[in-house]
Amino acid sequence: MHPRLEAAIAAVRPADDSLRAPGQAHLDNLTKPRGSLGRLEEIALDMYMVRGEAPRADPMRIYTIAGDHGVVAEGVSLFPQEVTRQMVLNFLRGGAGINALCTATGIQLKVVDAGSCGGGYPEHPDLIQRKVAPGTANFAHGPAMSEEQCLAALHLGLDLAEDCARDGIRAVGTGDMGIGNTTPSTALYCAFLGFSPAQVTGPGTGLDAAAMARKAEVIGRALDVNRTALDKGPLAVLAALGGYEIAALAGLILGCAGKGITVAVDGFISTAAYVAARALCPTVSAHCLLSHASAEPGHRNICEALGERPLFDLGMRLGEGTGAAIALHVVRCACAMWNDMASFADAGVSPGTA
Amino acid sequence: MHPRLEAAIAAVRPADDSLRAPGQAHLDNLTKPRGSLGRLEEIALDMYMVRGEAPRADPMRIYTIAGDHGVVAEGVSLFPQEVTRQMVLNFLRGGAGINALCTATGIQLKVVDAGSCGGGYPEHPDLIQRKVAPGTANFAHGPAMSEEQCLAALHLGLDLAEDCARDGIRAVGTGDMGIGNTTPSTALYCAFLGFSPAQVTGPGTGLDAAAMARKAEVIGRALDVNRTALDKGPLAVLAALGGYEIAALAGLILGCAGKGITVAVDGFISTAAYVAARALCPTVSAHCLLSHASAEPGHRNICEALGERPLFDLGMRLGEGTGAAIALHVVRCACAMWNDMASFADAGVSPGTA
Repeated sequence: MHPRLEAAIAAVRPADDSLRAPGQAHLDNLTKPRGSLGRLEEIALDMYMVRGEAPRADPMRIYTIAGDHGVVAEGVSLFPQEVTRQMVLNFLRGGAGINALCTATGIQLKVVDAGSCGGGYPEHPDLIQRKVAPGTANFAHGPAMSEEQCLAALHLGLDLAEDCARDGIRAVGTGDMGIGNTTPSTALYCAFLGFSPAQVTGPGTGLDAAAMARKAEVIGRALDVNRTALDKGPLAVLAALGGYEIAALAGLILGCAGKGITVAVDGFISTAAYVAARALCPTVSAHCLLSHASAEPGHRNICEALGERPLFDLGMRLGEGTGAAIALHVVRCACAMWNDMASFADAGVSPGTA
Repeated sequence: MHPRLEAAIAAVRPADDSLRAPGQAHLDNLTKPRGSLGRLEEIALDMYMVRGEAPRADPMRIYTIAGDHGVVAEGVSLFPQEVTRQMVLNFLRGGAGINALCTATGIQLKVVDAGSCGGGYPEHPDLIQRKVAPGTANFAHGPAMSEEQCLAALHLGLDLAEDCARDGIRAVGTGDMGIGNTTPSTALYCAFLGFSPAQVTGPGTGLDAAAMARKAEVIGRALDVNRTALDKGPLAVLAALGGYEIAALAGLILGCAGKGITVAVDGFISTAAYVAARALCPTVSAHCLLSHASAEPGHRNICEALGERPLFDLGMRLGEGTGAAIALHVVRCACAMWNDMASFADAGVSPGTA
């Protein structure tokens, strides 16, 4: 029905389990007690099993994708909607958290306008202007996007993954910017994972308890208004409840998975995009890792429902890809371990008796 | 009594609490929701409060300090003692885990022989040869070190901190290499924090349950044999139960704290050195952070007893400073946030209503 999407799904390879034993043997032959680098060993082995070659992380890139949300009319955020646009400009001037962390970590940053309000932005070498529409519709009254709009955002993400493959990128981090976007993300968790709004609605950028209750109520209404879409498959769900940046991130995740590019999924918003990508193609999980446990309280239950453990918990809840930036450094360390350590034999180190 | 040690203790400044409000105001003025960078904000604020200036992490350095332990005669490790020496040579050839992680993270690595068995090593620009003695005595029969030997190792650590100050180092990671050194570390936890051997004895590089029980029994014997030392203060405890690398790391921690150099304390062994340094000078804690929860099972209870939360838990238990390498990158990110982000006013971003 959507040939490009179907091709992208078909391109995602599962891990090759026949590579587990040789990969483990490689790890166990490095000059360290067996298993003593913990999750670094798991990450490197997972990468080896999906790629069939020594895992490499560099060069690395983060896409911070912006979109606006009609649902902010319901008062679900403390920040005014124009902050999405202001922050895109802040990214381009290098003043945001994700700029600081990408520079500190040696990660390329690309900023993408998938659907922020207002018109175009000044040209900038690190800005990709692919606005599908200036913000979604208010999903408390009907679908956030048409399926065509949602598909355009997914295709944008697939295009970004093509860019990565062309540029030799080995690992990608996902990032988001969109005032109000914990609300559609929460709705997606409810639709895809069966949570109730009360279970996974959190304060976002800082709502108090009363405002959080209203937010949960708005999400309940959105699920209700869009209930016919919820039976029509992942694309319809994503269109009804998602956002342009979320759909583009889902496409990016799917596209990178199809090209064997490891994806560090950032926090609450990116995980919603990951859940959508998994609903389209469960095999993407072999190529992805959850960067961090978001301070957004529902995230913990969501990770548990996915059966996945985020790499770390530093109490972060900024988005933009900031958690992914730190996670990508861990991926880099895992690859360095695999590629740069000496074996017991080469180093003349006596192996243990374990 | 030990004038240099007393001077080092006196040099450690506490955090200046009057800097909390201006530091917090700086953080809250950066273009992000308040508190949304979680522990990165805490780290940067802590560094600001002890230094009185904008926190900086680079250049960063890890010291991996080697020592051997007479207690290996009791069969407490799966690896033969000569592995300490073999691994020092591996560090110098660049083939160990800590080499891979330091290179990947942009951290200088210095290798120190504080007390490994055997003679000297070939000269190497990154090797500091300051062997106090070729291994400790078996502490199951008497003190591991004399107080003079322990003091020499502490002074070595203080010397390394002087080197760091001279070289402009802003953040240091601690690393260890010493076959059998979970055993003296565990004994130190018992002596300083009141644990019983059974509570904190773990498998080290991979002991089975029976061997772990023997290890706990050996530690119990060491505590018993050395019990008169345990009432004579931190230096006597460290001499009786520690090791050369552990005492040198305690000196490094103390010396760095006195110079306002932030210390990322690695895992199980380094935390024992930190506990000894804290016993000598509780104020060192203002300058230190625990890098990671070691996979060594007792470490969790130990961190809790210290009232401190390690930054992350990646199931690592290699030592060498590998956990500190990743933690130092987080410290770098915290400093980048503080120094490189734009304020709401400068970026023209509307602050939220929170």
